[in-house]
Amino acid sequence: MPIPPANLYPPFNIVRLSHVELNVTDLAWSRGFYVDTLGLQVSHEDATHIYLRALEERGHHCVILKKADAGSVGVLGFKLWDAPDLDRAEHWFKSKGLPVAWIERPFMGRVLRTRDPMGIPLEFYVQMDRLPPIHQQYKLYHGVKPLRIDHFNMFSPNVDASVAFYGEMGFRVTEYTADEETGRTWAAWMHRKGGVHDVAFTNGTGPRLHHLAFWVPTPLNIIDLLDLMSTTGYLANIERGPGRHGISNAFFLYIRDKDGHRTEIYCSDYQTVDPDLEPIRWDLKDPQRQTLWGAAAPRSWFELGSRFDGADLVESDLKAQPIIAP
Amino acid sequence: MPIPPANLYPPFNIVRLSHVELNVTDLAWSRGFYVDTLGLQVSHEDATHIYLRALEERGHHCVILKKADAGSVGVLGFKLWDAPDLDRAEHWFKSKGLPVAWIERPFMGRVLRTRDPMGIPLEFYVQMDRLPPIHQQYKLYHGVKPLRIDHFNMFSPNVDASVAFYGEMGFRVTEYTADEETGRTWAAWMHRKGGVHDVAFTNGTGPRLHHLAFWVPTPLNIIDLLDLMSTTGYLANIERGPGRHGISNAFFLYIRDKDGHRTEIYCSDYQTVDPDLEPIRWDLKDPQRQTLWGAAAPRSWFELGSRFDGADLVESDLKAQPIIAP
Amino acid sequence: MPIPPANLYPPFNIVRLSHVELNVTDLAWSRGFYVDTLGLQVSHEDATHIYLRALEERGHHCVILKKADAGSVGVLGFKLWDAPDLDRAEHWFKSKGLPVAWIERPFMGRVLRTRDPMGIPLEFYVQMDRLPPIHQQYKLYHGVKPLRIDHFNMFSPNVDASVAFYGEMGFRVTEYTADEETGRTWAAWMHRKGGVHDVAFTNGTGPRLHHLAFWVPTPLNIIDLLDLMSTTGYLANIERGPGRHGISNAFFLYIRDKDGHRTEIYCSDYQTVDPDLEPIRWDLKDPQRQTLWGAAAPRSWFELGSRFDGADLVESDLKAQPIIAP
Amino acid sequence: MPIPPANLYPPFNIVRLSHVELNVTDLAWSRGFYVDTLGLQVSHEDATHIYLRALEERGHHCVILKKADAGSVGVLGFKLWDAPDLDRAEHWFKSKGLPVAWIERPFMGRVLRTRDPMGIPLEFYVQMDRLPPIHQQYKLYHGVKPLRIDHFNMFSPNVDASVAFYGEMGFRVTEYTADEETGRTWAAWMHRKGGVHDVAFTNGTGPRLHHLAFWVPTPLNIIDLLDLMSTTGYLANIERGPGRHGISNAFFLYIRDKDGHRTEIYCSDYQTVDPDLEPIRWDLKDPQRQTLWGAAAPRSWFELGSRFDGADLVESDLKAQPIIAP
Repeated sequence: MPIPPANLYPPFNIVRLSHVELNVTDLAWSRGFYVDTLGLQVSHEDATHIYLRALEERGHHCVILKKADAGSVGVLGFKLWDAPDLDRAEHWFKSKGLPVAWIERPFMGRVLRTRDPMGIPLEFYVQMDRLPPIHQQYKLYHGVKPLRIDHFNMFSPNVDASVAFYGEMGFRVTEYTADEETGRTWAAWMHRKGGVHDVAFTNGTGPRLHHLAFWVPTPLNIIDLLDLMSTTGYLANIERGPGRHGISNAFFLYIRDKDGHRTEIYCSDYQTVDPDLEPIRWDLKDPQRQTLWGAAAPRSWFELGSRFDGADLVESDLKAQPIIAP
Repeated sequence: MPIPPANLYPPFNIVRLSHVELNVTDLAWSRGFYVDTLGLQVSHEDATHIYLRALEERGHHCVILKKADAGSVGVLGFKLWDAPDLDRAEHWFKSKGLPVAWIERPFMGRVLRTRDPMGIPLEFYVQMDRLPPIHQQYKLYHGVKPLRIDHFNMFSPNVDASVAFYGEMGFRVTEYTADEETGRTWAAWMHRKGGVHDVAFTNGTGPRLHHLAFWVPTPLNIIDLLDLMSTTGYLANIERGPGRHGISNAFFLYIRDKDGHRTEIYCSDYQTVDPDLEPIRWDLKDPQRQTLWGAAAPRSWFELGSRFDGADLVESDLKAQPIIAP
Repeated sequence: MPIPPANLYPPFNIVRLSHVELNVTDLAWSRGFYVDTLGLQVSHEDATHIYLRALEERGHHCVILKKADAGSVGVLGFKLWDAPDLDRAEHWFKSKGLPVAWIERPFMGRVLRTRDPMGIPLEFYVQMDRLPPIHQQYKLYHGVKPLRIDHFNMFSPNVDASVAFYGEMGFRVTEYTADEETGRTWAAWMHRKGGVHDVAFTNGTGPRLHHLAFWVPTPLNIIDLLDLMSTTGYLANIERGPGRHGISNAFFLYIRDKDGHRTEIYCSDYQTVDPDLEPIRWDLKDPQRQTLWGAAAPRSWFELGSRFDGADLVESDLKAQPIIAP
Repeated sequence: MPIPPANLYPPFNIVRLSHVELNVTDLAWSRGFYVDTLGLQVSHEDATHIYLRALEERGHHCVILKKADAGSVGVLGFKLWDAPDLDRAEHWFKSKGLPVAWIERPFMGRVLRTRDPMGIPLEFYVQMDRLPPIHQQYKLYHGVKPLRIDHFNMFSPNVDASVAFYGEMGFRVTEYTADEETGRTWAAWMHRKGGVHDVAFTNGTGPRLHHLAFWVPTPLNIIDLLDLMSTTGYLANIERGPGRHGISNAFFLYIRDKDGHRTEIYCSDYQTVDPDLEPIRWDLKDPQRQTLWGAAAPRSWFELGSRFDGADLVESDLKAQPIIAP
């Protein structure tokens, strides 16, 4: 199916991706990973939860680590523009026959809980506690110096359907991979906040979270993290990279935590605020779309992802993606 | 006067700053400066004009160099969201008693020409010729590797009035300098596209353009430019930097061309898409607002700027800004 | 065998590695690779030879590209301290029963030609034409901004023997890989000029040149080269990296030219001038010695190398090195 | 006077500069500065002394902070090649009529104490305690990530005399500033270890230490330090920079501690091991020799320095250096 044109007048105004709740089995281990090693800042912690923010963020949290019996993803959160947008969102999801509920969440105002058609748990809000700026408290910077949460990437069993749904919500496609043989979209990158993506979808058994991503200042911060992880016991948590994606032009590194949650460390994408920005098309057969410099990705990167709570897995009807082996 | 609250529902939708027309007296010299030295790409050139774009831009141009008898600024351009926004803009400027005209411009669709209350010539458009992406044609990158135009900074004889006017248009203040003694706003940074600013206003005889700015990937690109300029005959064109601004947190360099037009090379600001982002207040007496690391700026940086065509200069009634001398 | 202690009083004084003659089958292609892409500077060229230097070098050349029917290595060159060292070198090689000859070379004074016991062709000199400094002519910098030739790495069928021979010449071991099972040295890095190495030897069918290496300012220059090569038709010439070696701590990239000559782009080693610097021992079973971050090297990197003119190949009696596959 | 030719056969073999003893009035403050802020590692500390090393060094210390009543410099230390060099050094200094003494120093073997003709206290040794490598313990890296001590820079009332003396010891001039009017050498950079300098001398009342210097990986580490110091209470300790020196081509930053001891943070010089390396001559009237990019240095940088214990100050007979004011 063709990529839908940008929806310039969406039913409600999503500002940006906001936060993710990761269920983790060992809070202390995860604190060592996300706080001591990656360098995220703790906004709040208690016996069962750790709330984290990145260094230029003023919202209370972008990651919630939640003690659980098994690793999974609780919810993906998005910030809306203004109070009326919340009600419009409720109306729109209802009109699609999707479940809606108003829930209570610490550190946040009204929260609308729902799911996308694939079953991905979503929550929308306008107001979250605001914290004082810390981006010029340079003594706090360590690890990879994460500045902000950048995007979520999901496996979808039907990328065309996911793109249509998020497109209707106002996410605009910046780049995509077309499968010429089937005429289907293999993967798509879609944004609200003016970068390459807030969300991306890749063909595969899903819905599953492939990764969340943090923006960092320069490629040297990623090299610093690799040096640190490989000499402090986290060597096995380095999965792929460093490298350059053809798609998005990002300089990247992928790491995985003890529960299998994958994080991308990311810099160098580009500004996409123009509503008439033409999506860039990549062919599924072009290996440079994944890795501009030609190095292969490991099998795990293509196959593994995190389950979403309460979402049943569906297999894609498209053939498995060709893995480039060395 | 206090900073006005963000206007969440502006009369028309400005996407971003777009382009500037610089009148220059020596096209060949300016080509050597902006193209061969800074690394901007030529989209079109003829006997009287050179159109330039930066490396990640797909719009036809962000700078127009126009042969003229004297150095000045022809117009500042802004991109609007959709065709109806153009008509809404015409209506709004008319309602303010400001001049409006529909003009013809090469490489662009309908263009609305007007002025702000200080006399700054502005033009708004929705459609400009789109060019193929070149951001992954790495052989084109040279000089400072400019990725995109980032902002305009103007002297205003009444910053409070400028902030009120642009605020009504939907520009949101991210940082500002307050003059405690007078209760006035000394300077303000305002954005549409999600960074620290698309436009900024500083107290001074105006309206004048203090500088235009380009975004570059890392501080090392700025160091490369300094090395290049200081060994190819452009030493006298280096005005200030490198340094870190307290305001905006930018790593900066200021350079001036033969006609006195000032360009800032800029990286490291932060994302500002949240409509409830709290403006950061700086005190006029805090020297770190200008330069976090403490080095003084030269007098020229405080005093010199480029005239706008057809705009009369007005002196500010606020006392001169204290210059930090070494 | 144990690593021999540093020889503080060698028979003649070698200052540093100096140059390599690469036989290439297509001079124009090689010019495109080494000059236009890597950024080496041409000191002299004619129908059959191109002489190159890196940007901080003042000697006439560090690489000679010589038109030939097949890719191979003509000679490795080393600079000696003073005229008497040349005669002492002649005497010493003669005393070892190795061939010596005084030859004429353009751009150089007296040149002593000989071979090491494995058959590697070597030449020693004191005087080479000196060129004006260009390290501050920043407009010349492009490609990967190569600053100086850094080292040669060779396959040796008997690393212990190679280390003993070069150790007697005054090369001092900085790091080495020990094969615990056999008690043999698997690989060794040896220096004269105060970095991790001027020469290195790795177990394998030899003698062959594994790679020559250039020093560059920062890891970002290597990333720039990867971006450039992967978008200008040199994707297949990228072999391995970027990555960090455990041994030497270098940030590295390996590329191969059309004739199979391998070049390492290299930064971040450390100063080794202390004569009592303790060699760092690595175990052959420790995969982090090769790649601190854990990514596998391709098979080609372990197996392929360039023949030396006039040197017969000998297989090593040590078992093949375990290749870390992904 | 002309620069003396390189002395290829010095009376004893100096390997490199090694360490400096700084007398400081507030050990706790100095620990906060050199350890917590700059990132040097503590090798030993007690009530009166802190011994520090940089991250790639294996010798026990490169800086000794010693509790004292006033800020001054106790001694400059240099490492010799082998035991006989110590006796040769004793003989040579005696032959010059300079004082010699064998002293006891913790963590070191035999130590020869002496002074140069200007009165600078020097000590020479061959053996210092060796510590395990830490250059790959990346969790230790912080602050500016200092890798090694790089050089000492001194005010001399007679630079020609200082150059002649150190030249006789085997230090070779790499760059120098000539004063055409007087025919005198204004400043000179001299090395033993293969970089631009181990020692440098600048005209001025002396002998005084102008600064010690540390080598860091990239300019970005210097930017990190500026951000850190300017937001943790050390703004007033930033004296000059960042910038590029014409001489040495170094990217630099100068900072001063509470007692006035100045440290340069330094990267980007070049390899100088060739004994026939031609010194680069700069004219005293060329402002780019000091600062390639044209920014002025503050008056303090030209005038202030640290006294050496037991050395009387002598004024230079050369006129004061022209200060480039903004």
